Amino acid sequence: MPHSIQRSHARLPVTLDIQVVDEFGQSHTQPIAAERALTVYLNRREIVTLMSLGEDPEALVVGYLRNQGLIGTREDLEAVFVDWEVEAAAVVTRHLPEDLETRLGQRTVTTGCGQGTVFGRLLDSVPRARLTPTPLKQSVMYALLENLGAYNETYRSAGAVHGCALCRQEQVLDFVEDVGRHNAVDTLAGREWLNEGSSDAACTQADIFYTTGRLTSEMVLKVAQMGISVLLSRSGVTQKGVELAERFGVLLVARAKGRHFQVIDTQQRFIFDAPPPPRRPGDRRQTG
Amino acid sequence: MPHSIQRSHARLPVTLDIQVVDEFGQSHTQPIAAERALTVYLNRREIVTLMSLGEDPEALVVGYLRNQGLIGTREDLEAVFVDWEVEAAAVVTRHLPEDLETRLGQRTVTTGCGQGTVFGRLLDSVPRARLTPTPLKQSVMYALLENLGAYNETYRSAGAVHGCALCRQEQVLDFVEDVGRHNAVDTLAGREWLNEGSSDAACTQADIFYTTGRLTSEMVLKVAQMGISVLLSRSGVTQKGVELAERFGVLLVARAKGRHFQVIDTQQRFIFDAPPPPRRPGDRRQTG
Repeated sequence: MPHSIQRSHARLPVTLDIQVVDEFGQSHTQPIAAERALTVYLNRREIVTLMSLGEDPEALVVGYLRNQGLIGTREDLEAVFVDWEVEAAAVVTRHLPEDLETRLGQRTVTTGCGQGTVFGRLLDSVPRARLTPTPLKQSVMYALLENLGAYNETYRSAGAVHGCALCRQEQVLDFVEDVGRHNAVDTLAGREWLNEGSSDAACTQADIFYTTGRLTSEMVLKVAQMGISVLLSRSGVTQKGVELAERFGVLLVARAKGRHFQVIDTQQRFIFDAPPPPRRPGDRRQTG
Repeated sequence: MPHSIQRSHARLPVTLDIQVVDEFGQSHTQPIAAERALTVYLNRREIVTLMSLGEDPEALVVGYLRNQGLIGTREDLEAVFVDWEVEAAAVVTRHLPEDLETRLGQRTVTTGCGQGTVFGRLLDSVPRARLTPTPLKQSVMYALLENLGAYNETYRSAGAVHGCALCRQEQVLDFVEDVGRHNAVDTLAGREWLNEGSSDAACTQADIFYTTGRLTSEMVLKVAQMGISVLLSRSGVTQKGVELAERFGVLLVARAKGRHFQVIDTQQRFIFDAPPPPRRPGDRRQTG
């Protein structure tokens, strides 16, 4: 039988209503994104404080520790309990990595990268598995963008969050929003361990990763780490993002909104099988 | 005579051109945002690696160390030299804080917050000076948004960056873009020390802070730290951002785009002196 993990289910509402006054001086109720501090304790040792939406805190914490290399295998993980009363998550594992102190020490240097990513350490690491150079059809991408329109719930109502999705061709397997897109990626990784069923499948079946956020260095790295070779974003790319995509063989599609997109494809894997009608003047817009 | 700081001027081009293929299968040259790793050494000790646009690296490094509390006063700062060949910034100071080890230790916990902010430590700190509850006129805000339209250069051409500005009423005193908005805020703080003239004045004269980014907890905290009581953003707010704005007396204006905005004003400091013409249907849009 599969190794079972003791856990809480401390999901909280991800939005709350506040009163705002609009440009006409009229008062409105506006939902805004929750943002909660959650301090993570690994075998009673304080590791980090994460600011999060609180949608799936157990998965976030597990995914964070996993992606930081602080929990080696799913079997090491015994329990994760989140208590919002004290804004704390207690994680219990069988073993701690032998180089825990080194890792925590490194973080002093590396988590500062980009003021918040773990780029430094990730750059030294290589994707877990050799990436399969999945082709991507324009028609499939449009269908996927259509399907993704049904998600982004919190963003649509409250804004101020980023969404990430694990997809298999046009199908959305799993979708997470959080105040930081790093949290969303970590939550997906945590779900793989916590929900043995669906999301485990999601992570192993996914061949496209979607994010509303920018394609910076650490997003490309984290997606390559997940073994996914197609990265789709509504936003733009940065120099290091492009460099690392070429290095790891990740196909980048940036600024994907409506019919528009920009492919950065050094391997000629994108198949233009569904060109849209000719562009209307002023159709094109920049997005960050 | 004022204390002079030895420095390099290692500004690099902030965008570079890559080839992209659009939805019609046509190849284009697209400028993208630079993203460079810069490892900071304080008196020969490695502190952090920052991912940055490279627009004003000396100011970024000085502002980062200043906002982290690792350089106490401008007079402590002797030199800052950036060498892109080795992606390193060497900073020399007269004194290091006595609690340097503690601070670097804390960072292991705090820089992880939100996977990248220093919220944890900042929350414990209070604004340097009591905030002046500056009123804000709608007409002044519209004029300021007009003036800000002339900035955001990198964003408009390449996207994938955030901009921050120090403003005095409708006047833009200083504007910085970077791949991370934390970098942009730190760069403004660094300029105050490096360019004794203009930006020093900018920081002390500013009464409005503008950002393209979201009004999350740490943005509100950093702005309160700068002694500014009006925070204007093109994007949305989060719960902690609102809580801290109330706690510190910061007037928040969110989703400020075109004529639209949402004021969160617990002190009734916003003056509705320029209502726009009645809204057209479907005029209103959410922005993250």
